[in-house]
Amino acid sequence: MAEATDKLLSRRDVQFCLHDWLNIGETTDAETVDAIIDLSARLAEEHFLSHYKASDTHEPSLDADGVHILPQIGEALGHYADAGLFAAGFAEELGGFDLPFLACAASFAHFAAANVATAAYPMLTAANARLIAAFGSPAQVEAFARPQIAGEWFGTMCLSEPQAGSSLAEIRTRAQPDGEDELGQRYRLQGNKMWISGGDQDVSGNIVHLVLAKVPGIDGKLPDGTAGLSLFIAPKILPDGARNDVSVAGLNHKMGYRGTANCLLNFGENNGAIGWLVGQPGEGLRQMFMMMNEARISVGLGAAALGYRSYLLSLQYAQERLQGRPMGVRDGEPVAIIHHPDVRRMLLSQKAYAEGSLALCLYCAKLVDAHGDPDSTALLDLLTPIAKTWPSEYGLAANDIAIQIHGGYGYTREFHVEQLWRDNRLNPIHEGTTGIQAMDLLGRKILRDGSALPLLKAKLEAAAKRAESIEELRGLAPSMLQAWSAIEACLQQLSDRPAERAFDNATPFLWAFGHVVLGWIWLEQAVTAARLDRSAETQAHFAEGKIRACRHFFDSELPKVAAWLCAVEAGSDTAATAPIETF
Amino acid sequence: MAEATDKLLSRRDVQFCLHDWLNIGETTDAETVDAIIDLSARLAEEHFLSHYKASDTHEPSLDADGVHILPQIGEALGHYADAGLFAAGFAEELGGFDLPFLACAASFAHFAAANVATAAYPMLTAANARLIAAFGSPAQVEAFARPQIAGEWFGTMCLSEPQAGSSLAEIRTRAQPDGEDELGQRYRLQGNKMWISGGDQDVSGNIVHLVLAKVPGIDGKLPDGTAGLSLFIAPKILPDGARNDVSVAGLNHKMGYRGTANCLLNFGENNGAIGWLVGQPGEGLRQMFMMMNEARISVGLGAAALGYRSYLLSLQYAQERLQGRPMGVRDGEPVAIIHHPDVRRMLLSQKAYAEGSLALCLYCAKLVDAHGDPDSTALLDLLTPIAKTWPSEYGLAANDIAIQIHGGYGYTREFHVEQLWRDNRLNPIHEGTTGIQAMDLLGRKILRDGSALPLLKAKLEAAAKRAESIEELRGLAPSMLQAWSAIEACLQQLSDRPAERAFDNATPFLWAFGHVVLGWIWLEQAVTAARLDRSAETQAHFAEGKIRACRHFFDSELPKVAAWLCAVEAGSDTAATAPIETF
Repeated sequence: MAEATDKLLSRRDVQFCLHDWLNIGETTDAETVDAIIDLSARLAEEHFLSHYKASDTHEPSLDADGVHILPQIGEALGHYADAGLFAAGFAEELGGFDLPFLACAASFAHFAAANVATAAYPMLTAANARLIAAFGSPAQVEAFARPQIAGEWFGTMCLSEPQAGSSLAEIRTRAQPDGEDELGQRYRLQGNKMWISGGDQDVSGNIVHLVLAKVPGIDGKLPDGTAGLSLFIAPKILPDGARNDVSVAGLNHKMGYRGTANCLLNFGENNGAIGWLVGQPGEGLRQMFMMMNEARISVGLGAAALGYRSYLLSLQYAQERLQGRPMGVRDGEPVAIIHHPDVRRMLLSQKAYAEGSLALCLYCAKLVDAHGDPDSTALLDLLTPIAKTWPSEYGLAANDIAIQIHGGYGYTREFHVEQLWRDNRLNPIHEGTTGIQAMDLLGRKILRDGSALPLLKAKLEAAAKRAESIEELRGLAPSMLQAWSAIEACLQQLSDRPAERAFDNATPFLWAFGHVVLGWIWLEQAVTAARLDRSAETQAHFAEGKIRACRHFFDSELPKVAAWLCAVEAGSDTAATAPIETF
Repeated sequence: MAEATDKLLSRRDVQFCLHDWLNIGETTDAETVDAIIDLSARLAEEHFLSHYKASDTHEPSLDADGVHILPQIGEALGHYADAGLFAAGFAEELGGFDLPFLACAASFAHFAAANVATAAYPMLTAANARLIAAFGSPAQVEAFARPQIAGEWFGTMCLSEPQAGSSLAEIRTRAQPDGEDELGQRYRLQGNKMWISGGDQDVSGNIVHLVLAKVPGIDGKLPDGTAGLSLFIAPKILPDGARNDVSVAGLNHKMGYRGTANCLLNFGENNGAIGWLVGQPGEGLRQMFMMMNEARISVGLGAAALGYRSYLLSLQYAQERLQGRPMGVRDGEPVAIIHHPDVRRMLLSQKAYAEGSLALCLYCAKLVDAHGDPDSTALLDLLTPIAKTWPSEYGLAANDIAIQIHGGYGYTREFHVEQLWRDNRLNPIHEGTTGIQAMDLLGRKILRDGSALPLLKAKLEAAAKRAESIEELRGLAPSMLQAWSAIEACLQQLSDRPAERAFDNATPFLWAFGHVVLGWIWLEQAVTAARLDRSAETQAHFAEGKIRACRHFFDSELPKVAAWLCAVEAGSDTAATAPIETF
């Protein structure tokens, strides 16, 4: 059982995932990992959770000096930097600690659970620094990645524009060549960047913007499509101490995630913002995409963490709130609501969603660490759209259930569960919406190159075999394999269909595929749990909880796969071919 | 198609439901109905929609004088009263216009769509006045119902207490006899009432509280359970002009629905609040429950309306927002996102949810009007938990999709869709949570007295027969009847099960039952649409839209029935029997 002291994630569960299931000790010193996790849990609770409400009510503000954010955010990130957590995942030669992504992800989940908006700053900074470290010149790495790895400067990703959200081909930010210096090919950038998280703030020494822009051709026109996109480093403050030509045109007022200043940035309102090209022209999208798996797993992980904390909150509330009596009992004192079957059903659904989401993201993080192995990379590519969307949709579902368990109290801002729900609603949108992920899964990852499917199938079959050898899990695996067969049959039908109709129901396909993947993730966990030494009572309860959650997922969730595939298999074009006038 | 001028609900759709489908002209003058609907749409847009954002950002405040609400709310309700809408559904001898509940419901849906928090005041006032009119003495009706029917005073329902939410047996408010006067048996009330919507405000002349309380026995103790509950009228200002002993102990700060002041009220902090008994002692719960069908339909209707407006907003946005290109096209100008199959799928899901919810609630409203007919009353009792929950869950799902279609913009407070989502999240909670409705459906309405089931089955079969006679609908009805058979088979299994385990999965059963009911509601609409005169193009498009939404519901939603029944049929007690320590 989650301990009363587990405010963010269950410590036992995190250990279970890292050690018992994913064997992190094979590649990393187990004690180091545990120390990092304990440190993260403590820092997150002390310095991130403590201003969760405050960062919601005191939104970032904008004046002539720029954007001001809640001072506690800066203080929290100071502690994060002091603990070396900005540097954790980077190579030692860059000032990092060379920890595997899996350990970093497990650490990060605690901060996201405590305060996802504050945690967004280091998440973006790490992604930014990692990109520069991977593709920048040594001088660029020294000048722009190192201060971020040290946690002194923060970073942003400037992709979207007001007219270019999901479709980056629409980008109009223009980069004019402006000579060369020790930091590389210099350009002058002009354009408007929208939805820039951490686009400005007053807590870091500098802000390193990574800007996607197009270099005009000889005719002065911007190239069409995404092929002409290049990536530029445009710091808020230039190396000579002067302000770059980047200004905050406005703040977006969001429903949640409010502590993360989200800006409309104008580049080059005056002479053009100075930006140094990363790598070669035209490589921008490829560079971004090489970071995309990690970024999308981080989004999924944040969503999982938000769902997870709401599970722990409702578990606690359900044990404290007295209301009603057991079925058939009319008199006597009211009981804690956890004794009502419907509340317990909701809690077990939350557990299946939250723990399943976390386990999936940690599994994918392990695949990131295995990037030398082509099979692992292929499997990671296939699973990434699921790691992004499933926790975003079902972590949110766990948040929704948390409100329901809290009843009227959960609808008030006196409790945290409504804010967790609002915060999490961003996750199905940013870093590629669910619809975009569905196209990615079905198009790029399956129909264009289905080579990863057999790898996943082999994983499912191996888990099934292990499960069937365990008495208390018998009977589960066949329904998972049956669901997988339904997916395969559906794909066969889709591949026979004209391409322009194959994607009409890509999203229901993603839902079905995601549930099968989660069935497998739950079976993996159940097998691992069943093999634990259960002589101690707490271990026995923990293992039983995992197995019950797995069984609940198979009873109540897996049957939905067939329902979603109905529309896909029927090749229903009811929506896609509906004349606009019929809506 | 919904017209661009339809900001709240589609005028054509409301007319379709009222006239083409539910034949309101059989009982009420059609022109009068249309005039009321047009007036409602206009007033709602001019005076309710206009302060939608303001009522969210300027929450009610509390000072020594009591609760202050946004002045525009009072102005809007003044227009509502001037138009006679408080009086619409009441008998002429009470100063009303004797309109059927169906017409009142269709009118009300516009106000809920425009501003559900402002609309809550007249909804509660009507329910309060209706209860007094039904059970109060002539003097009570004169003193307390009439001013509400005139829209001069507003009313509240004081049921919940901090320790008594879903379980009214826990109520501790105490009513001590205090003589008798021309308004009836007088009592002194003492207790705390929680979650009181409209519990205080500064826009109506008086506030009539209907208070559920217990009369202590000779031993001074309050009776156990709900049998001892009685209902009292406790106005804020007494007939002699003195303030009653009712004070506002606090305001609840909600996530949404913020314009509705939601209070913790203390009754009798000094000498006891004066309250007059309605009817006889011990009849409180029965009286409340006789109003419950209408109150629950009104909640469902509000939820439907919130979902409906979010559908219209995303339909408009999807036609204006340019982004991306059709499948396989790489160059050229971006297209409106409504041209993308996934957006169209989302819109059709919204249409199925929103129009289906509205249609269900209006159907139930018609059953309210047929209260003289026992079969209609039995059917209404059976359908009420669905009318309460289905729109609450799927109207909310439509709100969620609206945010997704708006992308990042939908997550900001510059647009309305995020507020519609926050507002609607209350509806699965108040007036009986989804879990409570599930117990009501399965326990009280089906297992205890299954006599309404054959009535519903006959409705389904009749609709199926009509549908099968129409070429373009052929093939739909059998899947609905099959889903119904699955429900019946499941009930057979449940009735063989020990009572204490029969309710473990009452909520998944409710979901399954609800989807079958909605399948039928959609088939009813499709049959009606198919029979419309479709010679005019707009009519043809309207009818095709209804039929496509029906088909989409059958393709994409109805298959979920089998998935939900899986857990119920398996008699899964995985959650219910899980030791607390395993969570």
